[in-house]
Amino acid sequence: MPVLVMKFGGTSVATLDRIRRAAKRVGVEVAKGYDVIVIVSAMSGETNKLVGYVDETSPLYDAREYDAVVSSGENVTAGLMALTLQEMDVPARSWQGWQVPLMTNSAHASARIEEIPTDNINAKFGEGMKVAVVAGFQGISPEGRITTLGRGGSDTTAVAFAAAFDAERCDIYTDVDGVYTTDPRVCEKARKLDRISFEEMLELASLGAKVLQTRSVELAMRYKVKLRVLSSFEEQSDEAGTLVCDEEEIMESNVVAGVAYSRDEAKMTLVSVADRPGIAAAIFGPLAEAGVNVDMIVQNISEDGRTDMTFSCPTTEVARAEKAMNDLKENGELNFAEIITDADVAKVSVVGIGMRSAAGVAAKMFKVLSDDGVNIQVITTSEIKISVLVARKYMELAVQALHDAFELDKA
Amino acid sequence: MPVLVMKFGGTSVATLDRIRRAAKRVGVEVAKGYDVIVIVSAMSGETNKLVGYVDETSPLYDAREYDAVVSSGENVTAGLMALTLQEMDVPARSWQGWQVPLMTNSAHASARIEEIPTDNINAKFGEGMKVAVVAGFQGISPEGRITTLGRGGSDTTAVAFAAAFDAERCDIYTDVDGVYTTDPRVCEKARKLDRISFEEMLELASLGAKVLQTRSVELAMRYKVKLRVLSSFEEQSDEAGTLVCDEEEIMESNVVAGVAYSRDEAKMTLVSVADRPGIAAAIFGPLAEAGVNVDMIVQNISEDGRTDMTFSCPTTEVARAEKAMNDLKENGELNFAEIITDADVAKVSVVGIGMRSAAGVAAKMFKVLSDDGVNIQVITTSEIKISVLVARKYMELAVQALHDAFELDKA
Repeated sequence: MPVLVMKFGGTSVATLDRIRRAAKRVGVEVAKGYDVIVIVSAMSGETNKLVGYVDETSPLYDAREYDAVVSSGENVTAGLMALTLQEMDVPARSWQGWQVPLMTNSAHASARIEEIPTDNINAKFGEGMKVAVVAGFQGISPEGRITTLGRGGSDTTAVAFAAAFDAERCDIYTDVDGVYTTDPRVCEKARKLDRISFEEMLELASLGAKVLQTRSVELAMRYKVKLRVLSSFEEQSDEAGTLVCDEEEIMESNVVAGVAYSRDEAKMTLVSVADRPGIAAAIFGPLAEAGVNVDMIVQNISEDGRTDMTFSCPTTEVARAEKAMNDLKENGELNFAEIITDADVAKVSVVGIGMRSAAGVAAKMFKVLSDDGVNIQVITTSEIKISVLVARKYMELAVQALHDAFELDKA
Repeated sequence: MPVLVMKFGGTSVATLDRIRRAAKRVGVEVAKGYDVIVIVSAMSGETNKLVGYVDETSPLYDAREYDAVVSSGENVTAGLMALTLQEMDVPARSWQGWQVPLMTNSAHASARIEEIPTDNINAKFGEGMKVAVVAGFQGISPEGRITTLGRGGSDTTAVAFAAAFDAERCDIYTDVDGVYTTDPRVCEKARKLDRISFEEMLELASLGAKVLQTRSVELAMRYKVKLRVLSSFEEQSDEAGTLVCDEEEIMESNVVAGVAYSRDEAKMTLVSVADRPGIAAAIFGPLAEAGVNVDMIVQNISEDGRTDMTFSCPTTEVARAEKAMNDLKENGELNFAEIITDADVAKVSVVGIGMRSAAGVAAKMFKVLSDDGVNIQVITTSEIKISVLVARKYMELAVQALHDAFELDKA
């Protein structure tokens, strides 16, 4: 039987009624002849509640215990989904990560999937089971501890299962009906895209578009998994939603495909560090070890052999970063005058594979922002994206202005 | 190092503050030199919420999925307790049932513990860990599915760990300060007992006293585990609470030690079944298979080769019992005229090892109830207890009258 992977996010399984609605969608695909692997998130709000418990209990928590706690919401939904399907006479059972077992590395709280054995679930398909319901977001480490894959990790679980089982498609059911040119809550002219390339989706996801976890797109790109994002709240045809696919499958596209933003950025500056070879490694090595995801980096011009090093990271990691830097200073491994933290910035980015061949996108972006009086603090670029850090109060304005300037409301 | 097992019930870990309070108690025992195994329940209300989800999703649920769902609350508390202890600089980590692994049989929703390997946890104690926090109530079956031990199963987990690790004592922390002669909410004269024998506690627990799960007492009795029930809401000395111990360790006791009641009983009568050899097996075999816990049984006098068979079971199992009986009838395996269900009864019992040597306890009990106009519907007795089924409206009255008559308010 061909295999289909269907993933339901937190809002799609937020109540027993919604679980029933999702189960009906699964039933439709089973009726078409698919063996279905359903990946479920926790009921919406559950994981946040659990993360809140952990944060309140232990601000610098042991990530192994964090994982043990926050993975539990998915187990509940998996069991309830299996029961709901059984009630509809669809043979189903649930799997928790350790039962598959979905093997990951030991990077707790943001573990990477190493292996998904298929024997166990395939054997059950062979016995007549039609749906394997798998708790998303979780796995086990080589040490046998529970790991989680980072926020949004259920998307990655879904794509990894689609790759492992050579699924015909991986459908990501969520609370929006596809991928938009930007967040419709910030820009009302945002337009749904029928198709988007893996590369663009990857950039948009890593730049803050919350519709898919970055690593799920990476995986889909590497294993050529046909990925579809669609709404669990509407009747769906086979053409619904947005298909994330190879560049070649997209006929024509705008130079810029979308505008992304990330609200929860912080800018940190280490004032007056020695400007010597290896200084970047001395700073960013320990930050990586402390679990700080450094994004943009700027090094000032040197003066008297000293320089300022500025970087951005998620606001949630500021405490970690400050501790790591102060530890280095105490140990005498790094000298700096002070740390200046600005937790009041946001990142705005434009993304499009058309930028490879079209010149002037950056110039246009900077002019648009300048015309609206938005000061650019840090810039980074890649082949298909340009990102700027701006004061948070300008974030919505910047997104709307860029959406207009690049005419993203027009197909 | 000597090992101590400490179990914290749902109300004792209901909030992060209470978890901190419980962790402080654990810290006190660690400071005394114990290696501590902490067994935790789910935060109070969590398991009921999950059971509610399952019941609403699937009234005749697949017990394997039920177990997968309802076991998740304990995982949360175990992780949070480990984190709280770590914050207090007490080396701790959490274990879920499958990680120990706590092996059970496959009787989902009321599984029995088969084995608790100690190597894994002992190795960690050897490495300097002071507290192993274990999620109570759960284990895994030989098939690798999650099992649960039935409501109150964390008590059983605790006693089983105490037996497996040869613990000096098993302290059950709960929301009451010990075992009472009866439920203080029903009878204000109820008195806390300093000690109670395993046998009496076993009867009280199985007759409805909710302070300890029946099987935990059975296990404690078999493995001579010193079991103490005490409050997590009071400062505790080594003499606090109630010690459940061997009869020999109790100097003197009343003829009747306590009065128990169970509110959620139902009485079912199969009207006009054939009065033939094997009829009881034909009825109660299938009921057991359907997971119905039949308690009291009465068979009427036979008339024309037909008789009425009456039994009691928890009200929650009435639907299951009716289905099992109707299935038998449809299959032609059992003939009866109708099933009469009375879900409005309660069981009241008096318990005491003194009854072995004292005559007249039953007579006195029946007279007391009769004097208050309480009609007795079914009676069962054992060496140390007498139980009666009465209309539920008389339950409180019966408990109070018996508590007075046997002078349980006096030591």
